[in-house]
Amino acid sequence: MPARPREFFATKTVAQALAGFRPARRTGETSVPLDEALGRVPVAPVTAPHPLPGFARSTVDGFAVRAADTYGASEGLPGYLQVTGAVAMGAEPAVSVGPGTAVSVPTGAVLPAGADAVVMVEHTQEAMPGMIEVVRPVAPGEGVVRADEDAAAGAELVPAGRPLRAQDLGMLAAAGVTRVAVRARPLVTIVSTGDEVVPPRTARLRPGQVRDACAVALAGLVAQAGGEPACAGIVPDDPGALEAALRAALPASDLIVVSAGSSVGARDETAGVVGRLGAPGIWCHGLAIKPGKPTLLAECDGVPVIGLPGNPRSALVVFRLIGMPLVRLIGGCTAPPPEPVARARLARGLASAAGRLDVVQVRVRDGVATPLFGPSALLSVLTAADGYLVIPDEATGLAEGAEVEVTLYR
Amino acid sequence: MPARPREFFATKTVAQALAGFRPARRTGETSVPLDEALGRVPVAPVTAPHPLPGFARSTVDGFAVRAADTYGASEGLPGYLQVTGAVAMGAEPAVSVGPGTAVSVPTGAVLPAGADAVVMVEHTQEAMPGMIEVVRPVAPGEGVVRADEDAAAGAELVPAGRPLRAQDLGMLAAAGVTRVAVRARPLVTIVSTGDEVVPPRTARLRPGQVRDACAVALAGLVAQAGGEPACAGIVPDDPGALEAALRAALPASDLIVVSAGSSVGARDETAGVVGRLGAPGIWCHGLAIKPGKPTLLAECDGVPVIGLPGNPRSALVVFRLIGMPLVRLIGGCTAPPPEPVARARLARGLASAAGRLDVVQVRVRDGVATPLFGPSALLSVLTAADGYLVIPDEATGLAEGAEVEVTLYR
Repeated sequence: MPARPREFFATKTVAQALAGFRPARRTGETSVPLDEALGRVPVAPVTAPHPLPGFARSTVDGFAVRAADTYGASEGLPGYLQVTGAVAMGAEPAVSVGPGTAVSVPTGAVLPAGADAVVMVEHTQEAMPGMIEVVRPVAPGEGVVRADEDAAAGAELVPAGRPLRAQDLGMLAAAGVTRVAVRARPLVTIVSTGDEVVPPRTARLRPGQVRDACAVALAGLVAQAGGEPACAGIVPDDPGALEAALRAALPASDLIVVSAGSSVGARDETAGVVGRLGAPGIWCHGLAIKPGKPTLLAECDGVPVIGLPGNPRSALVVFRLIGMPLVRLIGGCTAPPPEPVARARLARGLASAAGRLDVVQVRVRDGVATPLFGPSALLSVLTAADGYLVIPDEATGLAEGAEVEVTLYR
Repeated sequence: MPARPREFFATKTVAQALAGFRPARRTGETSVPLDEALGRVPVAPVTAPHPLPGFARSTVDGFAVRAADTYGASEGLPGYLQVTGAVAMGAEPAVSVGPGTAVSVPTGAVLPAGADAVVMVEHTQEAMPGMIEVVRPVAPGEGVVRADEDAAAGAELVPAGRPLRAQDLGMLAAAGVTRVAVRARPLVTIVSTGDEVVPPRTARLRPGQVRDACAVALAGLVAQAGGEPACAGIVPDDPGALEAALRAALPASDLIVVSAGSSVGARDETAGVVGRLGAPGIWCHGLAIKPGKPTLLAECDGVPVIGLPGNPRSALVVFRLIGMPLVRLIGGCTAPPPEPVARARLARGLASAAGRLDVVQVRVRDGVATPLFGPSALLSVLTAADGYLVIPDEATGLAEGAEVEVTLYR
């Protein structure tokens, strides 16, 4: 199939890309033990196999009673109850509570039969051996957790699509769920390109060579989005070599990321190769974002492909905005974890062209966001930044002192 | 050494604990390859072994020129320059730029000797083969990144103490740094206690038994704070057994977390055992926080020990506020990653006792924070929550509609 002419692919906005480029690909299901499930995405809601905690439980140290026996009790006119026994932790009560009697219970123990409340020990005193004074009344249910109060049988313990948090693991453990069916991590193949690019381990650079900074940084972002990165190495600026590398990556990949050559020629080569790779092919070639315009989005034989700009900074900006949501989408994550943000006042005005999203790196100190500038070839701007702010498509700039929302790096 | 009497240990505020309980223990140094270094904490700043990018580099596709040759150029009165060659990506230029000449350069290529700027190709046109018209002037340095503009030799690439972010890995790769000296992950031993507590894999519970929900959830929080959790299993409510378990954990642990029995007796046992474990011993026994008051902080023979409340929800609340910062401290993390927060309006008023920090679980929808209530024995309140808000020590409550800051779970 001949490549479509380049002009056909209009530039899209970031919002259009996020809403419109929604590949159907999803990773398969796998099962992980609970202690490896943090951050993993359940394929389906997990429900309680039985009520939790499973028995009526005291929430305080005190005495299990019939609430009615305490009505009207006060410091001046205490109620008297006969203590007929004690419940041990983790054991079934050997005694029940009848009218006028009480049973000693520690926090967390089983509520004995006949009792409907627990009086805190602080609201009792020993009248004589085997007899307590109750100085405050309790209502039915007070000091007690019902047998199904944490979860009824069949109740949803954790939802599908939300990465498991620490407390979710605790809830599943409480229910005896020790393995969880989760989405497999999307396998993201990262292909670096460029005649000038050499591996990071290269000790001495020849003039014009640069080490591959993008691959390891992209791999980090892939991992943060729940994916599994696989770096496929560095391909020279040669269409045949790139096509071979991409075709080799297709079968095993859930997403392919091409860290493209930065020259016009190299960019056109990438588009040409991706256009030949499989149907439906290129979705957009050019994003209305600065930095990051020369971004390519495609789907080839069911595998989404992102062609990133050649400048490392542009590539990382675009991958955060477009790539990480794609990794989450493919990995079944419908409720992404919240991003840290900070509100700040802008230290100086920023100009921006309407119709384009501007991503500005900032340092944040004492509530003031200071923009960091420099060519998009510089990584130091990103490493010096605490986060970034976005000037929306429709805005033509931001005034000095404007309140901005900064997305913070972590 | 006999245990000090319990009354000696006053209740501390959370602020006092964070500021005052600062064990000196730090993990040792280890070296990790760059592709495993995400989130790891450098022991020292990493500096650039040589200038970066290492050569003056074009930032655009265009023509390397002497800026002075373009002064006054305009659409109406273009400057004419003779094209004497081209630079290939990743290669040393074979030609230099003299007066009245230009050399074709792609983005990212080496700036040829003699040139001090690059004219974008869009601001030129071919006058005749081998000759271009320049229609806009460039200033010296325009279209160029200096040889040391990303980093001078010896410049700090990443600071000590801040967990490495994706872009930091990129910067290190660019500099040829492929291994990083980082702090070892703090080994955090989690000891569960309680006669009623059984392993999560227990299929059928006897009356009064509960599965260990805390250990796996705490392990998740330890991992999120950069630590390495080790669950030591479940110890019955027996001082001898607890002491044996803690003494066994001491040598290998950087921090010991006791998920304590929830009854008064079990709590006192934990304090007694920890008090005997080693000097200087118990730092505080009781925190002014709700939920979470029965918290114990100690240092025994150089190993910090946290005794957590028995209720899983209280335990997780306290571990987030006190335990995770401790894990980071011990792991050398002086610049913790930012937490996601959201501002919201409170759906209903909240009462609070002055002199105590109240931690309230909330759901956040459309900018409204709805408090979730229930006994602190319930984990479902935590799993239903999107985050929590804190009512400070000095406040006696928050009014309905008050603007609150919610720390979001992830």
